[in-house]
Amino acid sequence: MKNYIAKRFQASQDSVMASAAADKNAYPDLIDLSIGDTDFTTDERIIRAAMEDALAGHTHYTSPQGDPELIDEVRHYYKTVHQIELDRSQVFISASSCFGMELALMSILDPGDEVVLFAPYFFPYKEQTELAGGTVVEVPCLEEEGFGISAQRLRAAISPRTKAMIVNNPCNPTGAAYDMQTYQTLAQVAEEFDLVVIVDEIYTDYMFGKPFQPFRSMPGMAQRTITLNSFSKNYIMTGWRVGTIIAETPVIDTIKRINENMVYSAPSVSQRAAIHALRLRGQIGDKYTGAYRQRVFYAAQRINAIPKLSVRPPEGTFYLFMNIKETGLDSIAFCDKCLREAHVAMVPGVGFGAAGEGYVRIACTTSEEKLGEAFDRIARLQF
Amino acid sequence: MKNYIAKRFQASQDSVMASAAADKNAYPDLIDLSIGDTDFTTDERIIRAAMEDALAGHTHYTSPQGDPELIDEVRHYYKTVHQIELDRSQVFISASSCFGMELALMSILDPGDEVVLFAPYFFPYKEQTELAGGTVVEVPCLEEEGFGISAQRLRAAISPRTKAMIVNNPCNPTGAAYDMQTYQTLAQVAEEFDLVVIVDEIYTDYMFGKPFQPFRSMPGMAQRTITLNSFSKNYIMTGWRVGTIIAETPVIDTIKRINENMVYSAPSVSQRAAIHALRLRGQIGDKYTGAYRQRVFYAAQRINAIPKLSVRPPEGTFYLFMNIKETGLDSIAFCDKCLREAHVAMVPGVGFGAAGEGYVRIACTTSEEKLGEAFDRIARLQF
Repeated sequence: MKNYIAKRFQASQDSVMASAAADKNAYPDLIDLSIGDTDFTTDERIIRAAMEDALAGHTHYTSPQGDPELIDEVRHYYKTVHQIELDRSQVFISASSCFGMELALMSILDPGDEVVLFAPYFFPYKEQTELAGGTVVEVPCLEEEGFGISAQRLRAAISPRTKAMIVNNPCNPTGAAYDMQTYQTLAQVAEEFDLVVIVDEIYTDYMFGKPFQPFRSMPGMAQRTITLNSFSKNYIMTGWRVGTIIAETPVIDTIKRINENMVYSAPSVSQRAAIHALRLRGQIGDKYTGAYRQRVFYAAQRINAIPKLSVRPPEGTFYLFMNIKETGLDSIAFCDKCLREAHVAMVPGVGFGAAGEGYVRIACTTSEEKLGEAFDRIARLQF
Repeated sequence: MKNYIAKRFQASQDSVMASAAADKNAYPDLIDLSIGDTDFTTDERIIRAAMEDALAGHTHYTSPQGDPELIDEVRHYYKTVHQIELDRSQVFISASSCFGMELALMSILDPGDEVVLFAPYFFPYKEQTELAGGTVVEVPCLEEEGFGISAQRLRAAISPRTKAMIVNNPCNPTGAAYDMQTYQTLAQVAEEFDLVVIVDEIYTDYMFGKPFQPFRSMPGMAQRTITLNSFSKNYIMTGWRVGTIIAETPVIDTIKRINENMVYSAPSVSQRAAIHALRLRGQIGDKYTGAYRQRVFYAAQRINAIPKLSVRPPEGTFYLFMNIKETGLDSIAFCDKCLREAHVAMVPGVGFGAAGEGYVRIACTTSEEKLGEAFDRIARLQF
């Protein structure tokens, strides 16, 4: 019997995340700083309200575009919080923002189209681009430039085949947040080369200094921007799988059509939970995001007190991208040593693109006490 | 500004389902027999148990392969109900069985590979195959052969590029259920031409005569079978978006890897609901499926009493594929007339492949009373 697997997947390797997860079960006292999932449970009010809706009949397919009430709540949010007016036809509810990215890429990419990624990047972007038939071009972002975007390197990376760039603000894994000057650079380049800008804006409530501004609010940018948002991180709802896509109507129509043959409609009870999350937003406030902010700054302070390790001041997300270059180890060897000798799990920076070598990603998705214990253990290691 | 939409989607038309839905809002007294969604709400016990689990913390990503408890319940179901032993590595939980089909096709298709569909077929199969890079070859199934599968026509359709066939039992839209002789034919052909058999077995509790047997239980077939199952129809859970894929471990590993860059993990609260659905299976019994069985037979009897309309004895699913050939209308014109003059919505058979012309699909997803009213109205039309 022949090997049935499609050729493009026959040689595929485990992702860095999967490899990092492989050996963790060996250590009962493991402190896991590798997980991009919130450690809080979804607010009880959201769960109870969603259940009442389910009991009242919301257990069916929704409109393939999304529950109309959720679409209207999303519009209300963008109008009141960001002064952005959206038509109903510009909003799509996806079964997670991860899937939203795949739908966005599929809707615009022809075979061989190039997509610019700013490295280090959230690692699924590369495979997502390739699954949609595109090719990735990496533009390195350097720590000495605050992991910001270099206009010069961006321009040098663009070719006649470049169709889009993916911008993640604030950025997983670097924790960088972009300023208005960066947004202006991106807007200029997008216009000059007629590019689509896919912006992954799922950590918008995790900005620690700069105010957050959606990229689509930049003058002239709405028509060429596909905005991804999610309930996973801002509302502590990772498991529910609900995201939003905002784009011009023809793009949303195409996404809707593709998705009718994929997930068809996002999970209905989860969409009800998302409606209640938006309605309860004022009451929940920064109950969860404030806790992460405190942890991230605590962890950064602890890192910078350990010789040979350092990290820039946190700007956003619940991740820190720790510089390990002075240890002389590469990021895989460093993570391996920390796992084996300190029972602390982190993700090697090289998993986020070649520009991530020399760094490891730390997710502050555990208590301050455990974070403290993790850095106590790492500080005792010999590098 | 150029047209950003990927070329393959620029010329795309609305699906037959979308077109059928377009004009329905015009009629306040519409009876909608076009919808493949159950009209019952999910059993209250399932909803309450899922929400208790959510409150207890099940609001996070699950393992990308699925909640381990759900995987074990699925294995228990196949063992106790179908005497099929499954390893944990052979079960994947997908964010709907619709999406499961796309993942299955992506995992095995190289560009240009051919997939055999038995027409009339569940219409997403065609686009799903094309999204995964494959090409569809249709094998017509004829009413005078009970919408069964002709070994001769199947063999004639196979080429060196044929990689797989999709078998839907019982079948949406025809309502046919396959007998053991058909399964033996399929097994012989699969072995002879070394094909993958993707079986869509989501209406297994809607078999009205023959016992249901999973195709993978046929001797020698498990290694080449990808089985799709779902909680949507058997457990009245369409909105929750949970399905299962059963296949050999390398196929499941590939599907898992593809999905890590798509939905990542199926919705966690929905997976808890699925666990409780399987555990409550004995208590719920045929409370819902029995109601559909009664409706389907009632509708068939009403159809056969209307001149120029006819339908075969129902064998499975909650659909009937009504023969309209004697009316002299094609299926689109017939549905249009019924919508405009009787305010009854149905789906034109041609939407399920060319072999569906001369038929319309009726979904018995409304009460017997409304079904009766629908056929009263249709009986008054002039054909």
